[in-house]
Amino acid sequence: MSTYLITGTSRGLGLSVAKKLLLQPVSEVSKIIAAARSESDALKAVISGSDGRVEYVPLEITDEEQIEEAVSLTADILGDNGLDVLINNAGIMPFTQGGIANMTDLKHVFEVNVLSVHNLTTAFIPLLEKGKLKRIINISTAMGSITQAPNYSLTPHPAYKIAKAALNMLTVQWHLAKYDDRFSFIASSLWVKTDLGGEIADLELEEAVSAITERLLHAGRQEAGKFLNIHVKGWENGKPGKHNYYDGKELPW
Amino acid sequence: MSTYLITGTSRGLGLSVAKKLLLQPVSEVSKIIAAARSESDALKAVISGSDGRVEYVPLEITDEEQIEEAVSLTADILGDNGLDVLINNAGIMPFTQGGIANMTDLKHVFEVNVLSVHNLTTAFIPLLEKGKLKRIINISTAMGSITQAPNYSLTPHPAYKIAKAALNMLTVQWHLAKYDDRFSFIASSLWVKTDLGGEIADLELEEAVSAITERLLHAGRQEAGKFLNIHVKGWENGKPGKHNYYDGKELPW
Repeated sequence: MSTYLITGTSRGLGLSVAKKLLLQPVSEVSKIIAAARSESDALKAVISGSDGRVEYVPLEITDEEQIEEAVSLTADILGDNGLDVLINNAGIMPFTQGGIANMTDLKHVFEVNVLSVHNLTTAFIPLLEKGKLKRIINISTAMGSITQAPNYSLTPHPAYKIAKAALNMLTVQWHLAKYDDRFSFIASSLWVKTDLGGEIADLELEEAVSAITERLLHAGRQEAGKFLNIHVKGWENGKPGKHNYYDGKELPW
Repeated sequence: MSTYLITGTSRGLGLSVAKKLLLQPVSEVSKIIAAARSESDALKAVISGSDGRVEYVPLEITDEEQIEEAVSLTADILGDNGLDVLINNAGIMPFTQGGIANMTDLKHVFEVNVLSVHNLTTAFIPLLEKGKLKRIINISTAMGSITQAPNYSLTPHPAYKIAKAALNMLTVQWHLAKYDDRFSFIASSLWVKTDLGGEIADLELEEAVSAITERLLHAGRQEAGKFLNIHVKGWENGKPGKHNYYDGKELPW
C-alpha cells in the first residue's frame, strides 16, 4: 500500500515507469501520482485504464508556484496517507555542438536538472515524512561521474554532465541531512533509448524500466546516499563499444 | 615573463596571491591583472607599489558585459603578450542555518561560483591561446568532494558544496576539451582563514598563499585535469580535529 510520485510522466521513462508500477498489486502500489507539464494522450490512456490508481498532477518543475500547487493536490489525493516514494525523473539533456567552449545553456540546464529537484524535494518533505518508505530516487547518469568523465569526452552534453555531478552532490547532501530521519536518498544511473536519451543510449526502454522499477520498489537503507547503476541482465560487464555497465552496484563519483 | 589574471583581488586570498606573485622577479612574473568588483584601498596600495606590474581591471564576475570589458582592458594592458595564467578565485560561501532543508541560495551560489567561472573562462580563451602557459587554476575545496562529503556533514554550506562539485566537473570538461591544445585546467583545494573561509578554516593565510603560489608558478601538464590539494608543510597528514590534509596530491572527486 505504497504511494509514488514520478515527475516527467508525459512520455519516455517516466510514463513507462508509471505503467510498470501499475502492474504491481494494489497491496504493493496503491497510488501513483503522475506529474507532468501536460497530460499527454499516452498518459491519459494510462490514467483512464488505471481504475483510479494513477492520477495526474500538473507540474512544470521550474515553476515554484506550480510545485506548491502540486504538493497541495497530492495531499488531497493521498488523504490520510503520506507519500512513500518520490522519483525525480524530469530533466533535459541538450546538445552543445563543438563542446564546452560553445556551452551557453549551463544556467538553464542547472535550473531544470538540479535546482528544480531541490525545490521539489524540499516542498514534498512534509508528505514524505508522513510516508512509510521515505525513499527518493534521483535519476542520474554515469555521464555525471567526474571520475568517468574521460569515457564521455566525445559525448556533446557538457551542461548535462556538470548538472548531474551537482545533482549527485545534492543527493548526498540530502542523504546526510535526512538519513537519521529514516529517509533514503539515492542517485540512480541509467541511459535509455528515449526522446531524451537518444538512439545511441545504452538500454532499451523495457529493460531499463524493469530494472529501475525493481529499485523503486525495493531500494532500502543500505542503498541510501549512493550513486548506483540499475541492474540489467547481460549488462553486468558492459557491451562491446559501450562505456557503461549495469550491475546494480556503485559508480565512482 | 608570464602574465597572470586573478579574480577577487580586493581582499583575502586573491589580494595576497597578487602580492606574493609580485615578489617574483619580473623575468618570471611580468604582469598581474588584479580583477575585482571594486578597487579596495589594500589593492590600491599594492598597485601603487608595484612599478606598473599590477593593474586593476573592474570585474563583477556575474556580469557578462563586464566580463567582455575586462577581456578588452586586459588585451590593451598585455599588448602583444597573451595571458599565461588565469586564477578563478572569486567566489562566495554563504551559511545555511539548519542545513539543506533550508537552502534557498543554490541558484545564486551556482551562478557566482560556477556559471561565472565558465563565462569568464570562455571569454578569456582567446587571450590564453595567445599565452605560453595556458594554465587555468580554479579554486575549489575538499568540501566539493562528493566522496568526502560525510566529513563535512556538519559544515553549514550546502550550496557551496554542490556548486564546488559542479565546478570540479566544469574543470574536467574544459580539461578534456582543451588538453590537446596545450591547456592545463586544474581544480585546486584549500580552505583558508579569510573573510570567506572563516575562523574555523584550516590554513593561515600566509601558508596557503605560499603554497597556492607555488602551484600557480609551476603547475604543469601532469597536473592538468586533476583535483589537487596544495602542499603545506606540516599538513601532509592533516591535523588533530581537522578533516583536510594538504599534501599537494589528488583528492577523490
